[in-house]
Amino acid sequence: MTSARAILLLHCPDRQGIITDVTGFITRNRGNIVYLDQYVDTMDKRLFMRVEWELDGFAIEERKQIFKAFQEQIGVGYDMDANVFFSDEKPRMAIFVSKMSHCLYDLLARYQAGEWDVEIPCIVSNHEDLRYVADQFGIPFYVWSIAADKSNVEQVEREEMELLQKEKVGFVVLARYMQLISDKMIARYPHHIINIHHSFLPAFKGAKPYHQAYERGVKIIGATSHYVTKDLDAGPIIEQDVVRITHKDTPDSLVAKGRDLEKIVLSRAVTKHIERKILTYKNRTIVFG
Amino acid sequence: MTSARAILLLHCPDRQGIITDVTGFITRNRGNIVYLDQYVDTMDKRLFMRVEWELDGFAIEERKQIFKAFQEQIGVGYDMDANVFFSDEKPRMAIFVSKMSHCLYDLLARYQAGEWDVEIPCIVSNHEDLRYVADQFGIPFYVWSIAADKSNVEQVEREEMELLQKEKVGFVVLARYMQLISDKMIARYPHHIINIHHSFLPAFKGAKPYHQAYERGVKIIGATSHYVTKDLDAGPIIEQDVVRITHKDTPDSLVAKGRDLEKIVLSRAVTKHIERKILTYKNRTIVFG
Amino acid sequence: MTSARAILLLHCPDRQGIITDVTGFITRNRGNIVYLDQYVDTMDKRLFMRVEWELDGFAIEERKQIFKAFQEQIGVGYDMDANVFFSDEKPRMAIFVSKMSHCLYDLLARYQAGEWDVEIPCIVSNHEDLRYVADQFGIPFYVWSIAADKSNVEQVEREEMELLQKEKVGFVVLARYMQLISDKMIARYPHHIINIHHSFLPAFKGAKPYHQAYERGVKIIGATSHYVTKDLDAGPIIEQDVVRITHKDTPDSLVAKGRDLEKIVLSRAVTKHIERKILTYKNRTIVFG
Amino acid sequence: MTSARAILLLHCPDRQGIITDVTGFITRNRGNIVYLDQYVDTMDKRLFMRVEWELDGFAIEERKQIFKAFQEQIGVGYDMDANVFFSDEKPRMAIFVSKMSHCLYDLLARYQAGEWDVEIPCIVSNHEDLRYVADQFGIPFYVWSIAADKSNVEQVEREEMELLQKEKVGFVVLARYMQLISDKMIARYPHHIINIHHSFLPAFKGAKPYHQAYERGVKIIGATSHYVTKDLDAGPIIEQDVVRITHKDTPDSLVAKGRDLEKIVLSRAVTKHIERKILTYKNRTIVFG
Repeated sequence: MTSARAILLLHCPDRQGIITDVTGFITRNRGNIVYLDQYVDTMDKRLFMRVEWELDGFAIEERKQIFKAFQEQIGVGYDMDANVFFSDEKPRMAIFVSKMSHCLYDLLARYQAGEWDVEIPCIVSNHEDLRYVADQFGIPFYVWSIAADKSNVEQVEREEMELLQKEKVGFVVLARYMQLISDKMIARYPHHIINIHHSFLPAFKGAKPYHQAYERGVKIIGATSHYVTKDLDAGPIIEQDVVRITHKDTPDSLVAKGRDLEKIVLSRAVTKHIERKILTYKNRTIVFG
Repeated sequence: MTSARAILLLHCPDRQGIITDVTGFITRNRGNIVYLDQYVDTMDKRLFMRVEWELDGFAIEERKQIFKAFQEQIGVGYDMDANVFFSDEKPRMAIFVSKMSHCLYDLLARYQAGEWDVEIPCIVSNHEDLRYVADQFGIPFYVWSIAADKSNVEQVEREEMELLQKEKVGFVVLARYMQLISDKMIARYPHHIINIHHSFLPAFKGAKPYHQAYERGVKIIGATSHYVTKDLDAGPIIEQDVVRITHKDTPDSLVAKGRDLEKIVLSRAVTKHIERKILTYKNRTIVFG
Repeated sequence: MTSARAILLLHCPDRQGIITDVTGFITRNRGNIVYLDQYVDTMDKRLFMRVEWELDGFAIEERKQIFKAFQEQIGVGYDMDANVFFSDEKPRMAIFVSKMSHCLYDLLARYQAGEWDVEIPCIVSNHEDLRYVADQFGIPFYVWSIAADKSNVEQVEREEMELLQKEKVGFVVLARYMQLISDKMIARYPHHIINIHHSFLPAFKGAKPYHQAYERGVKIIGATSHYVTKDLDAGPIIEQDVVRITHKDTPDSLVAKGRDLEKIVLSRAVTKHIERKILTYKNRTIVFG
Repeated sequence: MTSARAILLLHCPDRQGIITDVTGFITRNRGNIVYLDQYVDTMDKRLFMRVEWELDGFAIEERKQIFKAFQEQIGVGYDMDANVFFSDEKPRMAIFVSKMSHCLYDLLARYQAGEWDVEIPCIVSNHEDLRYVADQFGIPFYVWSIAADKSNVEQVEREEMELLQKEKVGFVVLARYMQLISDKMIARYPHHIINIHHSFLPAFKGAKPYHQAYERGVKIIGATSHYVTKDLDAGPIIEQDVVRITHKDTPDSLVAKGRDLEKIVLSRAVTKHIERKILTYKNRTIVFG
């Protein structure tokens, strides 16, 4: 059986000796480091680091004390933005969908096959259409219809956030959810709402990107997963991928080719988020390998 | 020895019987078709076609009569936009450069190696920097400096166009030429000036696209070759390609990675143009395989 | 409502006038051609062609007479290998699986979402493991266990073929089916059994390709969908794709990355097969766009 | 002006505290680390590391003493395979060519443009064909013809190695050099001879890979750069890339498409080698970003 592991994610202004100090803290406490990756942004003079060690035999036995000890011994001096996670504490993820099933199926098939260390306690939608998919996988499905005049949006989001809180949801995946998220909800989950946009951002922001791509006559289309921020389609990009098209493609065939991109690109981003391998800084992501 | 071939490029409103009629014209005149590709744009109800046949044994012996006969027998009835080329009449291409050599070397190395059926009678620049490259390959190099206040632009372009006319240049390749082309010159060479833009258009138009890409935090960068039109970076796209980057990349490393993309994407577009495999319609290109 | 369409797929030795004759047959009978693609293999001097026309208003009303008339008027003279299909006659597809669910989910999610004009009357397996997936989608699931000494293979395949015949199955998709198909069954479905091999063929044939790839230290891995022939992993390739890896990848992470490739590459091949856009000749495929 | 930097490349059995010790050695001597990347192969339990620090202000002033001090204080205890390089000591590279110019031009254009910190004192060939290219760039060109019966191979290689020694060549690039290198010469430059093979290895080893690819009917072709070892086309892979092809491609068009791949893939490998970012272990490469 594999031992549980602690995962330390941090970034701070780069200074001599940080890596020595951080790894020293772990080895001094008899932690066996099984993963270490770091990156120095030489333009911003900032260090980004992810280190993972086995808890078996680690000198600080109580989990709550680990981060405290780290901050007391190391963190304060370096003005760090740091977090500790534990490999056996599964993140809880909510999925928001509308009417298209391809991303939802891709997420749930991975979940069902045990590819991810994650819990999915609920699926939320603004339409009834995909209830049957949630039922296939035995996951509770909640529908809040949005009024045509959008008058109930605030009320709906309040109830959605109550659900997320009740279900201890840690992050939200918008799997082709065709409804804007309010600033209030974004503020509640900063860099914890993952969206898939069906274009190679920043090209073709907004609505109907495949039609925009067709009109512009591009030879390659893409998809982009990103964290949701206040600015539409402008949050930190986690992952992108592309596929080659030709003059023979119509908007419809672009939509079809795009579906494959969207689901793969979204699932790759979710994988990295679940593995706690993403740091964000200045609207960019550092994604460890 | 290979026989010379006629190349017919056309597009017209799609109607029943066009392909039968066009191929019928050729076979009736005992032409051996060696290439036929066509594409029907079902949204615009328009047919695009490229057909190539051997001139050996073709019943219409005088080249000038071929297009005339085609138009009389076929073209008029279909409201066609058509052209006939001959494989042994090499297009003449001018290259415009500024200070960066990577695209220029890539073009000239292919030319030197005999990869292309093309003549390059002249290289034009707004700087002296790359004269040594032109000298290496023995190609005349012409420099027109642009005044800081741009006051001589009109005069310079007039002289450049005189050179192009004198050298019977058929199309122009902007190989990282850092100077705007005037509407007048564009009008003289409609869809016959090929540019390479160092981004995945329509993302990052204008100046310093790699710096824009860095700021936006994209995970993939690209390059785009297109025909130059009045609207900056908005002409019909011929070819694009991309390369994956990571958070470790700086604007400088993007520039370096981009150079490989730029030269390959530009050369692919030039190849297709030389082979007369490109048709343009409504700001999109049809690029035959 | 869209009219039903006839789809003519053919290949034959290339000679002057074929395209004129074939399209002439259709237009003479007042068929409106909505798709025409052809390819001349200049090395083998062979023409490959796919043409699609609307049946509404077509002069030959009885479907069975179309192919007969075509052969009488055109086909005989050209030594053609030809077939006519109808767009509203959905092909029937069986899926064979073992224990891995990723390809199966991808196929069924597309089927459920109505992406394909296909019927899936049955799923066959050598294990019980994936019955729950078939149940989720309400598709009959049949299990034939193979004895450890393989003594019952012949009997099992006989029963499987009875099922396929009873269900009028037209083609079979091996969605990571870990059991060899006998020559007898292959002969029954020539170029109608599609397999996904988890490597970039012809590299890493046979068992455990991801482990082979890891050992060899490649920087890119791939997946290959192909028609099954008597020679293991050597049938005509329909589609391939690749993904970049690094020295950080382990055999396990290759398996994970490969899953995404496998399902996408298999589904692309199935799409083309359902659309009747594939011709095979000399162990190669012509896949129309 | 940038300070010169020391580059330490090492690998050793993984044990607790190595990274702390290595970075500690540098920071204790007041070295400012500007690059640190490491990778732990958890299967082989081996650590690979590359660290780079500024020499300005480093406590050990004499360069020869740095590696000595490192080994005494750190290296011995860990059974390390380590090397120290200095950023201002340019590696010296020889290029071997035969008759094809595309890779040679690509290498020399980068060299001329100042993209690489490298010296190219000589180009070696078994044919006169490309002397004009060497002349264009003013680099000495040496030709040793190989007798038809290969009787002079040993003598030729002896003279070539004398040249390499005289020119203090550190590594050799085979830029489509169509002549086998003997085991003796390989032994003299272990993992210091870089070859480009025109296929996606291990597929299509040996001669005429594009023809093999055509025969097999693959949908993607590739190129592979690798260090030369005794086993033909089986040395550690440094870089690979691919391009999509279709049934329309002939062996000739594959050769043309492959040229672009070959030159880019070779130049990427050379870049990494010049930057001292490659470690080899068990016939695999670790290529730092």
